[in-house]
Amino acid sequence: MSDIPESHPRYLSLKTRENLVAAAHAGVVSYEGLTSHGRGEAFDYLFGEKTSASALAAEKLAAAVLLAAKHPVLSINGNTASLAAAEIADLQKASGAQVEVNLFHRTEERLVKVNAVLEEAGCVVNRGAVERCVPLPHDRGLCCPDGIGSADVVLVPLEDGDRCEALVKMGKIVITVDLNPIDRTSKMATLPIVDEVRRALPNIAAECRRLKAEGVTPVMPEIDSRAILQAAINDIKEFLDNALD
Amino acid sequence: MSDIPESHPRYLSLKTRENLVAAAHAGVVSYEGLTSHGRGEAFDYLFGEKTSASALAAEKLAAAVLLAAKHPVLSINGNTASLAAAEIADLQKASGAQVEVNLFHRTEERLVKVNAVLEEAGCVVNRGAVERCVPLPHDRGLCCPDGIGSADVVLVPLEDGDRCEALVKMGKIVITVDLNPIDRTSKMATLPIVDEVRRALPNIAAECRRLKAEGVTPVMPEIDSRAILQAAINDIKEFLDNALD
Repeated sequence: MSDIPESHPRYLSLKTRENLVAAAHAGVVSYEGLTSHGRGEAFDYLFGEKTSASALAAEKLAAAVLLAAKHPVLSINGNTASLAAAEIADLQKASGAQVEVNLFHRTEERLVKVNAVLEEAGCVVNRGAVERCVPLPHDRGLCCPDGIGSADVVLVPLEDGDRCEALVKMGKIVITVDLNPIDRTSKMATLPIVDEVRRALPNIAAECRRLKAEGVTPVMPEIDSRAILQAAINDIKEFLDNALD
Repeated sequence: MSDIPESHPRYLSLKTRENLVAAAHAGVVSYEGLTSHGRGEAFDYLFGEKTSASALAAEKLAAAVLLAAKHPVLSINGNTASLAAAEIADLQKASGAQVEVNLFHRTEERLVKVNAVLEEAGCVVNRGAVERCVPLPHDRGLCCPDGIGSADVVLVPLEDGDRCEALVKMGKIVITVDLNPIDRTSKMATLPIVDEVRRALPNIAAECRRLKAEGVTPVMPEIDSRAILQAAINDIKEFLDNALD
């Protein structure tokens, strides 16, 4: 660990990076995942590091989609597990969704470690045998036939656009959480949530609980993904208009 | 190294990340530096991964500033050395500036390795003894009294806003290369260049050669840093306007 002075204006952000570096050294996050986190950081600046009104609306839609689903699955990678294991466990309880680990840089060793991080946080993880259910020339195509393979709704935070597209082409409803509204991931998603994962997941869980408390029968909502992305782009443009003042 | 398929739409970007990961494992780049690289990647998307007209204009100004300087120094960190060692060597030849290494996550071991990367690429590196010339509560304050310590112009690619501010407060003309136009680094700089370092440095070197070929006496140009940053922001907004089409 380096000696970052607490007086540094970006102290907390720098400490979060150090924690992810520790997770990478522990084999939970891939080292390439550190770069991906940086991309998220950059876009989060452009939203003022807070959840926009349009993102919150998308998160409420996501809750309705998860509750209306026959077989929802939360597809979790190393970065998401390291950043938000407790939030994933809480969303699983609130939504009733399965949790399954899918890694871009997949090794059996990392798979075991990421599963452990999630289970220690209270997740029930599907550790079933995997097959190449998703047509991808890459280990990301591996998943549980009784999990992501047969899911009708998949929530894939911090996902790769390539895999997102493959899941959509399989006919699944794909909910993404990605701070880049013009990334292929967001463009390909059925329901793109443009927000930081540690803010998004608790918002979805809270709405799941609110909807269940209301006792209304869940119905699959209409989703205008382009309008959601345009709203996010407008939020960034508005932030940029005031960024030099 | 992971097995990224060449069919992946972001194959080259992913390979660049893998190369930086290798540099981190080799001790040249800090692991936190991988996250910083990701932030740059994200902003580069917003410029369409190409040099804007306003960035090129700033790069030409930077060449004039370097040639008009009495004692210009290129302050290089691990990321910059790993990404652009050859470009730094070429800019040193074209501008006559000193090259000195300054590390955010400073260790003697990394210092030796980064110096070696630069010298292997053809840089003449100032390896003189260091003192805390820059008032910072951090090793970044260490530099050579006959280098950055007494420089009138310092080019600091991929720099931290905290250090950029400290150098400006010392009365130095600070040229930054950072893809984030609203980062403190860019806002604090005397001359902010909002471009990818591997594109920016060759453009500055080419302009240095053009100016020297013209044989005009170098004069320190007027710099409107706010106008440069506003132009970069406008470039991003224009890109976003077409990003969903």
